[in-house]
Amino acid sequence: MSDLEASPARPTRLRLRILFGEDAMLGPGKAELLERIRDTGSISAAGRDMAMSYKRAWMLVEEMNAAFRAPLVESSRGGSGGGGARVTEAGLAVLRLYRSIEETAALAGAAQIAELRAMLHDIPDQK
Amino acid sequence: MSDLEASPARPTRLRLRILFGEDAMLGPGKAELLERIRDTGSISAAGRDMAMSYKRAWMLVEEMNAAFRAPLVESSRGGSGGGGARVTEAGLAVLRLYRSIEETAALAGAAQIAELRAMLHDIPDQK
Repeated sequence: MSDLEASPARPTRLRLRILFGEDAMLGPGKAELLERIRDTGSISAAGRDMAMSYKRAWMLVEEMNAAFRAPLVESSRGGSGGGGARVTEAGLAVLRLYRSIEETAALAGAAQIAELRAMLHDIPDQK
Repeated sequence: MSDLEASPARPTRLRLRILFGEDAMLGPGKAELLERIRDTGSISAAGRDMAMSYKRAWMLVEEMNAAFRAPLVESSRGGSGGGGARVTEAGLAVLRLYRSIEETAALAGAAQIAELRAMLHDIPDQK
């Protein structure tokens, strides 16, 4: 998510989902999962941090690995160390592109998003 | 959704959700609902077209009307004609802005989205 405004009262964010035909999709959930796997070195820890089941985290990783030419996450399931996972170079590139598209979109749409925001009810600074 | 590519094999689309603080959100579902209410003159018909319960369609309309300064949808619940609904000038303006932000974002991100797409597995033209 990209911050469009620093206001504490109503920070405006853009979330973006990219659909590639019927069978591949990249959105905020997968991007965050990649970031957390990169940071924790573990699919299960990454999923846990997102309140996602182990099964769902694995499913999302498998979807991404199947959709892209090169795997985005490499993992060893188990072993004495309990297995681990790392985001590959391709995974890091996909993540950078996704975040960059988000930022580009938010910047390009900023004036129109501000127009929309001006049509909203005022809200108090403190809730 | 904005078409980024005419290819029948893998049309790429961008879906966009705008979050205004914690309490207001505008995304593809609400935008489509507004369009269908505009076209059908009915909240229930619009919801039905989207395989959405009457209750959910009403809830989304009420959310939008509460979030914006002016109501986006005006409705008469019942009466001999069964009630009807229309999208207000404010509603049409919000819809235009939302679709325009989508288009702006898709255009601004097109080169990077193409980079992402080039990292996907090839898929056959015919499925």
